[in-house]
Amino acid sequence: MAAPSYTVVKGGSIITPRGFRAAGLHCGLKKVDRNDIGAIVCEVPASAAAVYTTNIFQAAPLQTTRESLNNGILRAVIVNSGNANACTGKQGEADAYEMRSLAAKSFGVDADDVAVASTGVIGENLKMDCVRDGIARLGDALTDSEDGGEQFSQAILTTDLVKKELCLSLQIGGRTVTIAGAAKGSGMIHPNMATMLAFVTTDAKIGSEALHRLLKRTTDDTFNMITVDGDTSTNDMLVAMASGLSGQEQELDENHPNWSVFAEAFGEVCRHLAKAIARDGEGATKLVEVVVSGAESAESARAIAKTVIGSSLVKTAVFGADANWGRIIAAVGRAGVPVNPHAVDIRLGDIVVLTASQPVSFDEDAALEYLKGDAVRISVELNMGTEQATAWGCDLTYDYVRINAAYRT
Amino acid sequence: MAAPSYTVVKGGSIITPRGFRAAGLHCGLKKVDRNDIGAIVCEVPASAAAVYTTNIFQAAPLQTTRESLNNGILRAVIVNSGNANACTGKQGEADAYEMRSLAAKSFGVDADDVAVASTGVIGENLKMDCVRDGIARLGDALTDSEDGGEQFSQAILTTDLVKKELCLSLQIGGRTVTIAGAAKGSGMIHPNMATMLAFVTTDAKIGSEALHRLLKRTTDDTFNMITVDGDTSTNDMLVAMASGLSGQEQELDENHPNWSVFAEAFGEVCRHLAKAIARDGEGATKLVEVVVSGAESAESARAIAKTVIGSSLVKTAVFGADANWGRIIAAVGRAGVPVNPHAVDIRLGDIVVLTASQPVSFDEDAALEYLKGDAVRISVELNMGTEQATAWGCDLTYDYVRINAAYRT
Repeated sequence: MAAPSYTVVKGGSIITPRGFRAAGLHCGLKKVDRNDIGAIVCEVPASAAAVYTTNIFQAAPLQTTRESLNNGILRAVIVNSGNANACTGKQGEADAYEMRSLAAKSFGVDADDVAVASTGVIGENLKMDCVRDGIARLGDALTDSEDGGEQFSQAILTTDLVKKELCLSLQIGGRTVTIAGAAKGSGMIHPNMATMLAFVTTDAKIGSEALHRLLKRTTDDTFNMITVDGDTSTNDMLVAMASGLSGQEQELDENHPNWSVFAEAFGEVCRHLAKAIARDGEGATKLVEVVVSGAESAESARAIAKTVIGSSLVKTAVFGADANWGRIIAAVGRAGVPVNPHAVDIRLGDIVVLTASQPVSFDEDAALEYLKGDAVRISVELNMGTEQATAWGCDLTYDYVRINAAYRT
Repeated sequence: MAAPSYTVVKGGSIITPRGFRAAGLHCGLKKVDRNDIGAIVCEVPASAAAVYTTNIFQAAPLQTTRESLNNGILRAVIVNSGNANACTGKQGEADAYEMRSLAAKSFGVDADDVAVASTGVIGENLKMDCVRDGIARLGDALTDSEDGGEQFSQAILTTDLVKKELCLSLQIGGRTVTIAGAAKGSGMIHPNMATMLAFVTTDAKIGSEALHRLLKRTTDDTFNMITVDGDTSTNDMLVAMASGLSGQEQELDENHPNWSVFAEAFGEVCRHLAKAIARDGEGATKLVEVVVSGAESAESARAIAKTVIGSSLVKTAVFGADANWGRIIAAVGRAGVPVNPHAVDIRLGDIVVLTASQPVSFDEDAALEYLKGDAVRISVELNMGTEQATAWGCDLTYDYVRINAAYRT
């Protein structure tokens, strides 16, 4: 594999790309003293694009954000955690619009250039007193906050254990272009169009339409390929903003000579965030990666990879470090796409356990050692074609049950 | 609702319908001394029908059974537990055929009138020495075994905690017709065409084609409406046998004046077994029933009911007795069928928690008490049409994780 054309910016965050500031603080939506409201602000009108959950019960902020994105321009994103503002009726809609106008005022931008996002419990109205106070204070925090990216990343978390971010830089037309992202995940993670909440900033010069095409394509191979528990949230949203302040001359689109390297770096940011969400799934002790190859179509490969990664029986077997490949093949067989039942090879890491759908005698101790690691790769070769897909998830553990048996109480 | 036209036969089992004998014993496939091989034998050629898993990796016995059922006639079923004979290649196929011919010889019937079923671990070859010994001894056990139905029901269990059976009788044309069923379930339960293993016997006079139509229709509303963990097994099979010894004059089919009462009783046997499998799901502490009404089509209602019942977040909330209806509405919204996002009512038992998609203030203590019970009903009214569907499942518990993190070892 060729070396990537990008480099990781150590210590970088969503405010590393030129033109972005961010902040996060505690306003009282979470009972504990952890950041629960945050904002990203761009000093110029940013080309912007978003993808949203396919869940029919979309939370109020998604509608507000859609409206703001009508013209492909954003100046700011306001986000709260601790309350999803979903299934909250007319009051919820009014609250989302109020968040937008309060943020516009506090940050000195137009209301229809502000995206709104929420994550947390469904079905409770926002404590707007806290939100009003928080947004007012965010305006000050944005002014000179050097650790704004860090504070923002903390502000979007719910039951997440760690923040998820990545910053990459690459050269385009002799200029350094930076791309950064921050995300939150944890539970109710089985995205279909976008994951819980993720934000990507870049100083690349790119129009909102090209950005939207790239975002959709990238999402299919990254955020839409992770699952924690098979439940698709009402609030999933992925927003990308490009300030255009990198100094490039030629605007990026599919005809730009550096499009593929930009798309590669953009994809890597999304893939990193998606994997980080999977690894930090509720109760997870390890990242699980399922690679399906030799498929007749990319869609088939994706369907199988997502079925295997979502299988409760595969997930519990991985938690128990049990090389129970029978559960893997059973999941392959119920994915709803054609598979040659006599041609499948399966590997756990480098350990071959099934060849041409026949059990292979393997070193159980070595498999146990491998499965005890904090990252497990399951490879499924269908021997039918040349397409492939990768999905990411996590194991199913006692802690997943513990966390979710007592989420509200 | 009108009183049912059938009565429960207390102490009845699959050998209560005239013409059937059964047996079960331990032959060594299970390490512990529990029955692991069993048989049902009919003294006359029985009209028979079966439905099978849609999993692509179908276990060897399913092919053998399909061949035997070509002419719609069965005399016997041979079943083992402890080993699924799935993904076992040519040897597995040979073993399934050998089971069939050994059973034919031992029970004195033709080999092509014998169905074969297996359940247990995937990917290991059967210990045929044990199987041969077991089938030989089953022939004797069938002779005069009054508790044959009980022994058979025990023989088909794996991680099940209790046996699942029901026997009903009804009057058809002045004759008593009896219908009985036995099933096993536990894990890898998300049937699509049939569940793990279930057997229905009746002495009704009914042709194999009418029986097959009834079986398919009934399966859609019963076995195909349960889920334990979303994983569809390689071995699911439901076999029905009708001895015709009830003494009825007119053969049952859709034109028979008593068809609907027979179908009702047949459906009740299947529904009872399906619910028993759900209630005894791996690690389950309670039965969960999801009733979706007011749908535009039965297919929509089924899709939503199955999505809600399969949601890990709903299942853990029920385990934790948490009235977290946000997870229910989120599952409704990702079922992949059209729903009016402003019209949904949700009840937990009789407690209304959501009306027209808006939260209703409810008595949390009463909800907690209700959810602590051993049977929980979630009702979802879509207010779009007149169709409905019911699905059954169970809660997701620490024990599910414990059982499945260490199944093979």
